[in-house]
Amino acid sequence: MPVHSESLTLQTKTVREIVNITPQVKAALEKTGLREGIIAVTSLHVNSAIIINDEEPGLLEDIDEWLSRTAPAGEDYKHKGRFESNAGIHMQGLLLHHQVIVPFSEGRLDLGPWQWVLFVELDGLRPKKISLKIIGE
Amino acid sequence: MPVHSESLTLQTKTVREIVNITPQVKAALEKTGLREGIIAVTSLHVNSAIIINDEEPGLLEDIDEWLSRTAPAGEDYKHKGRFESNAGIHMQGLLLHHQVIVPFSEGRLDLGPWQWVLFVELDGLRPKKISLKIIGE
Amino acid sequence: MPVHSESLTLQTKTVREIVNITPQVKAALEKTGLREGIIAVTSLHVNSAIIINDEEPGLLEDIDEWLSRTAPAGEDYKHKGRFESNAGIHMQGLLLHHQVIVPFSEGRLDLGPWQWVLFVELDGLRPKKISLKIIGE
Repeated sequence: MPVHSESLTLQTKTVREIVNITPQVKAALEKTGLREGIIAVTSLHVNSAIIINDEEPGLLEDIDEWLSRTAPAGEDYKHKGRFESNAGIHMQGLLLHHQVIVPFSEGRLDLGPWQWVLFVELDGLRPKKISLKIIGE
Repeated sequence: MPVHSESLTLQTKTVREIVNITPQVKAALEKTGLREGIIAVTSLHVNSAIIINDEEPGLLEDIDEWLSRTAPAGEDYKHKGRFESNAGIHMQGLLLHHQVIVPFSEGRLDLGPWQWVLFVELDGLRPKKISLKIIGE
Repeated sequence: MPVHSESLTLQTKTVREIVNITPQVKAALEKTGLREGIIAVTSLHVNSAIIINDEEPGLLEDIDEWLSRTAPAGEDYKHKGRFESNAGIHMQGLLLHHQVIVPFSEGRLDLGPWQWVLFVELDGLRPKKISLKIIGE
């Protein structure tokens, strides 16, 4: 049972943006020819997240506002300095988690009717790398 | 090293309910005969979650109230429409995460003394599907 | 493709503490000689978490304060009793998640520039066990 490694590099057009990466994950799986297994989809950045959710635009705005409410960005943190990002952004990343494991069966992603693999950029305008590890048979 | 695929279908009796699915996960593992590995337990619905936690009834009520406080359901969202579920429920699902990976050793689930695999129904009364992918040797 | 099982036991010096366990995870990987795969790093306790984040000390204090704000420990819960831990601590563990899956490539952990594997003790002074399952080739 081999391991297939892929990576995606994304750069969003705006500082905050949610991108549906299901097509890229599906394409990576199809390239392997594997039928049964799991895909670990992992952001290699602390200021972005990977979630599985619906992609309806109103909902994505609601999620963005909820993040800013629950883990506000701002100056009132101890994590400060020339090269430090905002502590609130780190907390938003923790809240959403930086990773999902997508199961697949008969060569197809096991996603429910309103489930998509979404990359959540929390502090963008730079290229971000996502690791895909595909394990199966 | 083969991959074993199983799925569970659950329908709770109430709209909000936390169900201990450890016995089903354990039974699925025992059927495979595998000794060492991991099980990806994934909800295929955006309005339910899978967590590992204690199952004491008072705690489960506390968790339910905390979810409603931290990500309130309500009308004050952009995600609206005839077929849309409540945005607050989506956020509660994100907060808990829809998935756990359960390690197993010597044919038994590696769960600590107060750890159980729990299915968290956030908006129930319909059948919900849970994917189990068992990978090991 | 074999599965390698390891476990770490940690006891922090203070009740609340975040410990960088990247060196131990790296050492466990190197012992296996595997080149490509994933490592499931799982806390076997409901009052501690595993996250991937920056380890700057100011940020770790910020995260600790944010946890206490978002899921306050206190007496105002139904989960009470002689042997019960505080419900707020359970919620803090849920918020952070008790587990990460670390991908690895060419024998090295795939961690971004500000990513470290961190053990978050939420209610310490007792030994805590962390499971490592390493799957790859």
